[in-house]
Amino acid sequence: MPYIRCDIRRGRSDEQREQLCTRITEAVSRITGAPVGSILVLVNEHAGGNFMEGGAILPDYVAGPNGEDLAGEAALKRAQS
Amino acid sequence: MPYIRCDIRRGRSDEQREQLCTRITEAVSRITGAPVGSILVLVNEHAGGNFMEGGAILPDYVAGPNGEDLAGEAALKRAQS
Amino acid sequence: MPYIRCDIRRGRSDEQREQLCTRITEAVSRITGAPVGSILVLVNEHAGGNFMEGGAILPDYVAGPNGEDLAGEAALKRAQS
Amino acid sequence: MPYIRCDIRRGRSDEQREQLCTRITEAVSRITGAPVGSILVLVNEHAGGNFMEGGAILPDYVAGPNGEDLAGEAALKRAQS
Amino acid sequence: MPYIRCDIRRGRSDEQREQLCTRITEAVSRITGAPVGSILVLVNEHAGGNFMEGGAILPDYVAGPNGEDLAGEAALKRAQS
Amino acid sequence: MPYIRCDIRRGRSDEQREQLCTRITEAVSRITGAPVGSILVLVNEHAGGNFMEGGAILPDYVAGPNGEDLAGEAALKRAQS
Repeated sequence: MPYIRCDIRRGRSDEQREQLCTRITEAVSRITGAPVGSILVLVNEHAGGNFMEGGAILPDYVAGPNGEDLAGEAALKRAQS
Repeated sequence: MPYIRCDIRRGRSDEQREQLCTRITEAVSRITGAPVGSILVLVNEHAGGNFMEGGAILPDYVAGPNGEDLAGEAALKRAQS
Repeated sequence: MPYIRCDIRRGRSDEQREQLCTRITEAVSRITGAPVGSILVLVNEHAGGNFMEGGAILPDYVAGPNGEDLAGEAALKRAQS
Repeated sequence: MPYIRCDIRRGRSDEQREQLCTRITEAVSRITGAPVGSILVLVNEHAGGNFMEGGAILPDYVAGPNGEDLAGEAALKRAQS
Repeated sequence: MPYIRCDIRRGRSDEQREQLCTRITEAVSRITGAPVGSILVLVNEHAGGNFMEGGAILPDYVAGPNGEDLAGEAALKRAQS
Repeated sequence: MPYIRCDIRRGRSDEQREQLCTRITEAVSRITGAPVGSILVLVNEHAGGNFMEGGAILPDYVAGPNGEDLAGEAALKRAQS
């Protein structure tokens, strides 16, 4: 019965989304003892423009050459400066 | 900006809750490329009686000798039979 | 996999909560075709003071002689006038 | 002020969605005593690929000849075996 | 770390959405004392048909000549009569 | 029908919570055009230990001499360094 909802920006691949759900399911089961069969994960994807963080609307997700989240890094730097 | 909300039954230790948040943060960052500094995890804990799964109200969480979720295992078996 | 979250004011009995979850599970299964075994319902209860409706903080739940929600009726009238 | 959020897979008809909201509104009002005028229901629909249940990504919703949820039945059997 | 989720009907402009997030961020920071850099706002937009209020499915959002929410006004009157 | 959920750490006063809801209701109505009577705000309060931000569990909320959020400021600095 653990229920995990992830609100992220859209743009990741099907493979990334499946890996994300799998790793979360494994972590929840191993740490809380809940059986895998009882764990529900939902990924809710949104345009960057639907998020505001630190007072700034986020740009859409842009994947860097090694899969890093370029827009996320930039937003984090801006929020910290 | 990834936001992850976990709705689970109450009763896990502070250490379990911290491990859960840490593993989820790591998984989200590694797979989506989002910087760790931008990830927010919230664990929302509830009495078993506030969950219904497969038509049955859940019992409260009971930790087994090795940390397994005894009530969760029993509920899962009941839902499957 | 249908997941239903109910945010209500606290104060209902265990029996009311179980009936609520049971009726919702039945309605979701009958109308959407989802098997009962896959339906998860969570009731999240809050103090009246944590809700604002129509610009007014709600009073706590008070059950009338026939189980009606006296505070809810009053709040609704206030919002409409 | 009861607020009910339903996260389901997309694909049901407008008629099913309205029936679902109507039955939930009726059940919440009858059991909790809250006036119908104060009840808010939101149906949030998602692709099957955004859900993981029991460790497996769900297929999209497919309606059977009598409206049953074929993909849901199959997923439930897989999670139980 | 305050996290604010707004579920509204879709149809507002990018400018309205940004203003909404900005005003909420300011209010949360000023009143709770949380630093702006720690506040996350998410606007989740839905078709009118995904909401039921007071027992009636909502129409889609329609902006009036002065930006007022014509469909919302009508729905509110209907719920009150 | 706008629904706004605020997840914050517990510890603010009743007055702060009411002000927060009032300012959010006003902002949502003014910017989206939704009538005040249709706006629902819920404040969901949690122990600091139920949040992880930037990889660190948060301390509980501590109000500074001028109402500032001392623990929030410290957490934000730690996440940025």
